[in-house]
Amino acid sequence: MSGVQRAVVMMAPVDQEPHLVDPARPLVLIDDEGLTRGDGVFETMHALDGEVYKFGAHYRRLCASARLAQLPVPSEQSCRVAIELGLSNAGAGGDAGLGAEHTIKLSISRGAPGGTPWAWLTVTPVGAATFAVRRSGVSAVLLQRGHDPAEDSGCAWLLPGAKTLSYAVNMAALRHARDLGADEAIFTTSTDRRVLEAATSSVICARTGHGERTLVTPEPSHGILPGTSQARIFAAARQDGWRIDYGPIYPADLLRADAVWLTSSVRLAVPVVRLDQQPLPHSGELTDLLTGYLVGH
Amino acid sequence: MSGVQRAVVMMAPVDQEPHLVDPARPLVLIDDEGLTRGDGVFETMHALDGEVYKFGAHYRRLCASARLAQLPVPSEQSCRVAIELGLSNAGAGGDAGLGAEHTIKLSISRGAPGGTPWAWLTVTPVGAATFAVRRSGVSAVLLQRGHDPAEDSGCAWLLPGAKTLSYAVNMAALRHARDLGADEAIFTTSTDRRVLEAATSSVICARTGHGERTLVTPEPSHGILPGTSQARIFAAARQDGWRIDYGPIYPADLLRADAVWLTSSVRLAVPVVRLDQQPLPHSGELTDLLTGYLVGH
Repeated sequence: MSGVQRAVVMMAPVDQEPHLVDPARPLVLIDDEGLTRGDGVFETMHALDGEVYKFGAHYRRLCASARLAQLPVPSEQSCRVAIELGLSNAGAGGDAGLGAEHTIKLSISRGAPGGTPWAWLTVTPVGAATFAVRRSGVSAVLLQRGHDPAEDSGCAWLLPGAKTLSYAVNMAALRHARDLGADEAIFTTSTDRRVLEAATSSVICARTGHGERTLVTPEPSHGILPGTSQARIFAAARQDGWRIDYGPIYPADLLRADAVWLTSSVRLAVPVVRLDQQPLPHSGELTDLLTGYLVGH
Repeated sequence: MSGVQRAVVMMAPVDQEPHLVDPARPLVLIDDEGLTRGDGVFETMHALDGEVYKFGAHYRRLCASARLAQLPVPSEQSCRVAIELGLSNAGAGGDAGLGAEHTIKLSISRGAPGGTPWAWLTVTPVGAATFAVRRSGVSAVLLQRGHDPAEDSGCAWLLPGAKTLSYAVNMAALRHARDLGADEAIFTTSTDRRVLEAATSSVICARTGHGERTLVTPEPSHGILPGTSQARIFAAARQDGWRIDYGPIYPADLLRADAVWLTSSVRLAVPVVRLDQQPLPHSGELTDLLTGYLVGH
């Protein structure tokens, strides 16, 4: 595996001893239902200097996703062994001042028909593109989500809040945003244009005028994916004296906010600097503060 | 490949000469976005005595799905070569009286990041379970779809009507139906409980009382997948003197229909014999008639 930047650890079947595999070789059967049906769940985590912060929140969300999809989950201990094995075999973590950073993605697939679900873990050094976007921010467009996902929340078979491998629409929204010259897509409901979430991240905005210190995010229990980064920022911000608030947020709220971020586990707090081609205010100081809430000790 | 029932033909990259591969071996990279993002499209077709009927309708829908997902499509000629190659290397087709039957599934995946989209084709003899269900029918439950997919139809980034690899919700609905003791799930809108489609098939019902001969299906342009089998049945039935009608259909309409079917390319017209635990009337004669519309000459 020398010279290979990323490390892949196989955990198949899910309770088997984690072991390194060579990702340059095909590893997946062509009738695996992770591939043919997008039938699986995943979590993306972040390691800083070899430590996965908020592992507990990720593991709990993985278990919640898997429970909805009726998939088994590797034990917490097995995940920790796999993470350790992956980290010690991946290339050195990218470092832009916070420490050595790795992306850790843990996935569970249904497996082939008649076969067994399996899990795998990929560890990759965080790269320059991620560091750049944290500094320079992103442009975003608002795209209708077609329906209010709150309508799904009582229906377990619609996998509400589960982080599944079926991300075709999220990927299509990102391609559409890029076709429009933007970097990111922020979904709104089609009916009342309420802000939901971005394609692969949560939305937070800040109001800081006239001595106010308020962070706002859309209500996370209403069918959107509960963001582990958003939750961590809010917990730390509250302790630091911020008022925190859970929507509703409308596009006008984003346009008059003092800062807007997309938050996710690896990119951390990425400032939105343009929304539907209108410039948004942003503050390196506030971004550093939110980043500190995420990865600080 | 001797002794292997199914044949798999690789078409990677999509314009490469189709060639047989061994599906017992891993063929897919672990970071393929078909797997990690459900990012791809597919069609399931049916061959009878070596001939794929309604190939044109499948190829057009594949092209429509791929256009929405910004994926390339193998040429029609390349698909025909691959189908021929697969059919001549798969086990003998199952035969329950119609002729030798094979399932043909053609899929296109985004491929690995920075790589190339690729396509593959699987040919499998139709088996006893499919023949059994055509005769004995299925029990179904009505499950809310959470929203009216008609709301998606103007938004290309939501991939309305595209048949993507992101089927996690469809599979979860089938599991939920089975947990409830049924075989199949029929989706309804959450707001007005209008019937939409089943997890992997279209819904058709017949009214035949008092000399009436009417077939009804939910309006196929309103965000549900346009069924190639439903379309073929309707075209032939109209020529055969049936009145055809496009919804709306409500659960009460299914309960008072003279027959209800789930139609799809390989299972053909499967009678629904119980709906939410209530028996539905069904008629082997009508099922044979619809099957004839599908596969007859």
